[in-house]
Parts: sequence; structure tokens; C-alpha cells
Amino acid sequence: MAIYSVAAPEEGYAGGANNTESQGGVMKIGIVGLGLIGGSLAIDLRSQGHTILGMSRRAETCEQAIARQIVHEASPDPKLVASADLIFLCTPLAALQDSVQQLVPHLATTAILTDVGSVKQPIVQQLAPLWPNFVGGHPMAGTAESGLDAALSGLFVDRPYVLTPTESTPAHALATVAEVVRSLRCRLYQCAPAEHDRAVAWISHLPVMVSASLIAACLSEPEAAVLELAQHLASSGFRDTSRVGGGNPELGVMMARYNQAALLNTLHAYRNQLDGLIQQIEQANWAALDQALMRTQAERPKFVEPQ
Amino acid sequence: MAIYSVAAPEEGYAGGANNTESQGGVMKIGIVGLGLIGGSLAIDLRSQGHTILGMSRRAETCEQAIARQIVHEASPDPKLVASADLIFLCTPLAALQDSVQQLVPHLATTAILTDVGSVKQPIVQQLAPLWPNFVGGHPMAGTAESGLDAALSGLFVDRPYVLTPTESTPAHALATVAEVVRSLRCRLYQCAPAEHDRAVAWISHLPVMVSASLIAACLSEPEAAVLELAQHLASSGFRDTSRVGGGNPELGVMMARYNQAALLNTLHAYRNQLDGLIQQIEQANWAALDQALMRTQAERPKFVEPQ
Repeated sequence: MAIYSVAAPEEGYAGGANNTESQGGVMKIGIVGLGLIGGSLAIDLRSQGHTILGMSRRAETCEQAIARQIVHEASPDPKLVASADLIFLCTPLAALQDSVQQLVPHLATTAILTDVGSVKQPIVQQLAPLWPNFVGGHPMAGTAESGLDAALSGLFVDRPYVLTPTESTPAHALATVAEVVRSLRCRLYQCAPAEHDRAVAWISHLPVMVSASLIAACLSEPEAAVLELAQHLASSGFRDTSRVGGGNPELGVMMARYNQAALLNTLHAYRNQLDGLIQQIEQANWAALDQALMRTQAERPKFVEPQ
Repeated sequence: MAIYSVAAPEEGYAGGANNTESQGGVMKIGIVGLGLIGGSLAIDLRSQGHTILGMSRRAETCEQAIARQIVHEASPDPKLVASADLIFLCTPLAALQDSVQQLVPHLATTAILTDVGSVKQPIVQQLAPLWPNFVGGHPMAGTAESGLDAALSGLFVDRPYVLTPTESTPAHALATVAEVVRSLRCRLYQCAPAEHDRAVAWISHLPVMVSASLIAACLSEPEAAVLELAQHLASSGFRDTSRVGGGNPELGVMMARYNQAALLNTLHAYRNQLDGLIQQIEQANWAALDQALMRTQAERPKFVEPQ
């Protein structure tokens, strides 16, 4: 597997039409799904001088996107966005296949599609046969908010953005998507779809299940007064460890559904590690526990500090 | 079990000698162990007009505490601090018994001792027989830093502070400690030592093991390139869920050592919950997974929002 991290361009990320000269060229870019990610892509790409065509099932969202000058034009009709050179598919995972099937009859043969789904192997397997000029992608950016109202400029700056081409992905399609994505000043990575899914299982999907289990375990305390006291005493340690387990259930189910095999693999590995700690504590093997915690202390910075 | 949450006084927490009139009376207060907690207690209690006597094994720390006007006097000799009316024991758990044994020969019979250890049942069992006027306590405040340099004013404001009297704790000793602690404007709770230990096992000690297991599990990924990609892609979800598992190993071992039974109880309950989620994902029982995640989403605010 090759992983490329492509450095952001040196020039400042200013927004505004005056920085279009640093881009390879002005394009018609379509955005299907005008939520947080689609809207934020539209804002940044419009500021670079591209023509932005939006599509949302809801006419009201299309009107809002035009009124806020997030897109130049928008319509629930797939014909508008299908006239673009490059189209970002920003609908939920379950709606991607339908979106592509709606677009295909209206696309120019040179049109390039890319998605922003958080799982890649099943999506690439589903969409690539429908449209050869397809490049899987995953911008790893977000806020606690969702929807067009939450869309903002600069959302992708310094955030990872993974592209997952396969052997059959056309080189020019990959190059075009990479160039546009790089202009967002994200940290661009490239790997195979399955590798992406294994990596995000570890650092994104497993933490949700680990964290949800913590909340569920606390709720199993049989004595109401102890549970109540625990609720009063919980502070930053519990807050942080439980945060993603208290998040959007739909997203959690979707991760498990689309990334089932990779997630189960990480869950079994996690259970082995947990059982190791339990055994050390049961056996009062404090030296081994100390070693284990020294290792996690030493290794964590490799995940959470800039590399 | 009785849990009392005592509201903070209405008057402002200003520091400075002019607010001593809101206190029950000026005392000589001893602080054994001049680290983050001991130093911060000294700063706040001195600002209320109490006379603060410090003790640290290290003469250099005593000098610093005097130079920074954190304490009025300080000495490595237990005789100085033993002359106080009320003594906060702020040494690590393992040093508490020695500290009390050093003090006892020099204490006035009316002197009151209280500790700040994060586990209560073994500490109360150890110390109460050495000095009847003892009240177990646990201020749940801290920063990422430690040591006297990190000590600061207002550390305990709005933080939980648990007192754990037993049937043999003298009522006047409890009342005195509660009054002084309340003046820190913390949220004061009172419960039995065992209940405290069960509650903190859920919200403080279990999260450390859950979080450390997450880091350890990621490190078990066999393919180096996938691990490297995971390290690059990790963001706020992984950062938060792994934070306490990447903390001080000594503290983690100490929690496990002193709160072994309660921690193991929570670990087994946690494993049951985890196994439930694994089974739902293995069986593709998405409706059950959705219900489980809806429950954790609904219940988390009871732990992390002001009550």
C-alpha cells in the first residue's frame, strides 16, 4: 500500500477570486447534497473562482444555498449538476448509489465523480461499476453541527482528506480530484479502499463502540445512589472518554453496517487487550500493568500530535 | 447511603483577607505535601486569613512555598505542621500512613486530620485507627500539571469534593472539615468510603483502563502501513477517547491497586456491555445496535451536564 501525504501549497489560503491563478484551472463543480460537507466544499471552491452547481432533494435547501451565495445555481433536478466537470457526492452513504444512478444518464463522458463517504471499500465497489471516472474520497473534517446552516469556509484546512483509487481508476480522474482537493489546504493521503477502512476502524469506529460501552456499563450499576453519585462526580476524564459513545446513533450504526468486518476485527483485538489488563489487575500484577500503561502513554502521541 | 450536595455560599469568592468574616473562624491549618493539591489548598485558605503551615520532605519545596507566600511557614520537620488545628494530608496514597505516624506524637488531642486521596475505603481503614479525629476526603480537581509550580487559586471552585465519614468519625471533626472545604466554593458531597470508591471506579478508574486498551488495541494492527495511516488520520474522536489511557502510569496503577475490587467489578460489567455490542454487530442486528446507541446518547448528559 502506498500512502502519500501531499503538503499544502505554501501560498496563503485567502479565499476570494484573486487566488484562482494558483489553481490548475476554473471548472464547473457539482455538489450533490448540500449539508455540512457539501456546503463547506461549495464555499471554498467557489471562493477559488470555480462555478458551483448544487443539488438537494429539498427545494428549500437549494434556495438557501443560492441566497447565501454558497452555490451559483442549485436544483433538485439532477440535470443541472450533471453538466459539471467534477461532481462531489455528499449524500449519506445509503443514498450514494441512487444519486449516481440519477446522474449517469445526464453526465458528459468526461465527467468525474468523487464521494465523501466515511467508509470506502463497499462504496467504491458499488459506484465504480456505475461510472468509470469515479474516485473514492473521504474528507475527515466536521463539526458538532450538521446541515447547510453549519457549512463554513476553511473546514478542511489541515484536516486529513483520503483518496482511495483502485487499479481501474483513470489516472487523469485521480489527478483532477487530487488537485482540487489539495487546493482546500487539507492533508491529502492516498491508499487502497480496504486500507482506509481498516485505519478508520481503529481510530474512528472502534472508539465509538468502546466509548458507548463505557456509558452502558455505568448504567448497569445496581445501586441507584452509587449511580447518582457517579453522575455527580464525573468530570473531564469521563466526559472525554464517553464523548463519541454519546454521539449520533445513526452514524454509529452506519459505521458498523458499512465497515462491519474491519470494525469486528478491531473489536476482537480490543477485547484481547482489555482482557489482558483485567488479568493483570485480578492477579495484582502491578509491574505488568505499569508496563502496559507506560507503553500506552509513550505511544499515544504518535496518534494525536502533528507528524 | 446519604449523599449531600452542599450549595456553595452566595457571597463572591474573592480571595484576600477581607472575606474572612464569612468563615467560621481563623485557624492554624497544616498542609502535608506541597504539590498541586496541597499548594492550591494553601493559596485559597491563606487568602481567607487562616495561618498556613506547610510540610514537605524537600527543604527546597518548603523554601519555595514560603518565598511564593503560599504558606506562612514550612518545614520538613513534622513538629511545625503538627501544631495546626486542622491538617490536610496531601501526599501520594502510599505515603499517607507514614505521614500520619510521623505526626501523631506531636499532635494536640483536638487536632483534626483529613486526607485528599482519590481512593477512600483502604485509606480510611488505615488512618482512622491511627488518629480518631480523622475525616476522609477527596477533592476532585486537578490540572494536567503537577507539583507546587502548578498550584493555583480557585482550583476547587465548582469541582466536587467528597467527604467520607464513618460511624466512628467524630461529628465536630466532620463539621470542621466540611466548613473549611465549603469555603473553597466546591460542590461538597458526603457518602460512605465504599460508595465513593464504587462511584469513582465507574467514572474515573474504569475510563483509564478502557482508554488504555484502545491505544493498545490499535498498536496490535499487524500491518505497519495501516497503523501509520491510522496515526495520521486520528482526530478528535480518538484524541478524546484515548486521553486518560495515555496519562500517568503511576496514577493508573495506584487506582488499580487501591481500588482493585471496585475496579474489577466495573471492568467485568464493561466487558459484558462490550460483548453485547460485538454480538449485535456480528449478527448484523442493526435495530438492537441503534437502540443501544440511542440509550447511551440519551443517558450521557446525566453524567456530563450540570445537575
